[in-house]
Amino acid sequence: MKTFRTTIRVRYCETDKMGVVHHSNYVKYCEIARWETFRHLGTSCKELEDKGYFFPVISMNFQFIKPALYDDEIEIITKLKELKGAKMFLEYELYNKNNELINKAETTLAIVKQENMLPCKPPLEIKKLFEM
Amino acid sequence: MKTFRTTIRVRYCETDKMGVVHHSNYVKYCEIARWETFRHLGTSCKELEDKGYFFPVISMNFQFIKPALYDDEIEIITKLKELKGAKMFLEYELYNKNNELINKAETTLAIVKQENMLPCKPPLEIKKLFEM
Amino acid sequence: MKTFRTTIRVRYCETDKMGVVHHSNYVKYCEIARWETFRHLGTSCKELEDKGYFFPVISMNFQFIKPALYDDEIEIITKLKELKGAKMFLEYELYNKNNELINKAETTLAIVKQENMLPCKPPLEIKKLFEM
Amino acid sequence: MKTFRTTIRVRYCETDKMGVVHHSNYVKYCEIARWETFRHLGTSCKELEDKGYFFPVISMNFQFIKPALYDDEIEIITKLKELKGAKMFLEYELYNKNNELINKAETTLAIVKQENMLPCKPPLEIKKLFEM
Repeated sequence: MKTFRTTIRVRYCETDKMGVVHHSNYVKYCEIARWETFRHLGTSCKELEDKGYFFPVISMNFQFIKPALYDDEIEIITKLKELKGAKMFLEYELYNKNNELINKAETTLAIVKQENMLPCKPPLEIKKLFEM
Repeated sequence: MKTFRTTIRVRYCETDKMGVVHHSNYVKYCEIARWETFRHLGTSCKELEDKGYFFPVISMNFQFIKPALYDDEIEIITKLKELKGAKMFLEYELYNKNNELINKAETTLAIVKQENMLPCKPPLEIKKLFEM
Repeated sequence: MKTFRTTIRVRYCETDKMGVVHHSNYVKYCEIARWETFRHLGTSCKELEDKGYFFPVISMNFQFIKPALYDDEIEIITKLKELKGAKMFLEYELYNKNNELINKAETTLAIVKQENMLPCKPPLEIKKLFEM
Repeated sequence: MKTFRTTIRVRYCETDKMGVVHHSNYVKYCEIARWETFRHLGTSCKELEDKGYFFPVISMNFQFIKPALYDDEIEIITKLKELKGAKMFLEYELYNKNNELINKAETTLAIVKQENMLPCKPPLEIKKLFEM
């Protein structure tokens, strides 16, 4: 299974009054991580969108294990788990600087044509990624 | 089981280049819906925080069924499903103006003391809500 | 000059680790306020976009006078100050529950055609708003 | 005058239904840029907050010249313009990959003590930055 490591740094605006990262931002972190993984493996979300595809999230699941703080560097390991019909299954593990697992997530993305927003055959670029 | 209906209107800044609501915003919608539910039932997140509690999300799960668009009014039905130890289990259903289910979600929140961020006995106000 | 009052309530996710509303959210509050003002006066951003227009912000200016807190209700007074060629000039004053001015803002919006993103003659609906 | 270049990449969630970066995100970009500038010059927002300071924005001013698109790399030049009493004056210029100026901004930040949120003498670390 193909995996890739992305690092992000927590922004001030991503914290909330509890003093930690607001839980909605992990959704954004995983979005960044998956497209950086795609880019690293040879294509990109932008390139694929330019070819007429969109990749809406159809389900997501997050486990919050430890909080992240402002200015923390977080390493995100993205796993391209499975491509099945017009669906991509991805998994994420987020680690802090002490190498502690702080978050686990799963997202399922649909592959759709922009012209009709309907599920479609995955483009070759995506097939390749999942076969690596 | 106690349920309550909240209505939100999609903000321009919540859309993305696909022309629909970015999936991270459903996390915020459910956050608004649960605290409005609490307020309606007689307490509020702010009031409880002023008494020394925090309510971090420890897991969340979202199913995206139909997209929401800019300016849409979305009705969110929040169910206070269960209180078990220091954990609250909540469920959400989001409907558009045509009464179509567009999103289903579950969140689990911990009840912690601000002074040590450790799980604690739920305050009476919360017990009451779940026993209604 | 046409003015209108909108009320918003501060969301949890809009606070930051200082315990107050993150300054970027005031930009969103004014966006909500201006389109609610339009709606109140008889048209809406969505309706105008459906007719082929976009309204990108070309400048903005914010003065932060007092902080806003989680769960605060904020009243926003929007003034449609001037329509000049393809530019709309708007002003905003934000007040807390104690009727204290907490923020002052100005935004300039361009009126452009979606087909070419170029400035264009304001639609009649907008002319009417500024002549009221 | 001390300047520093930071690069950010536009995130998917930062776009809106116009297909470009939502204007509120430039506020976040400048926030990132100023603290990366501080870090580069030898201190950091986090370090200074740990010493008891906060740096609330008291005014901001943005000129939008050209739109930014998803996945664009944007270079932000931050200028530490002036330190005057308990106020820091900063300026920003944002450039796209074609070296076109897309945004100009100014922010004024207060230097306050966390214990009372009142303006205070700038810490030595900040004085040094502005004297460089």
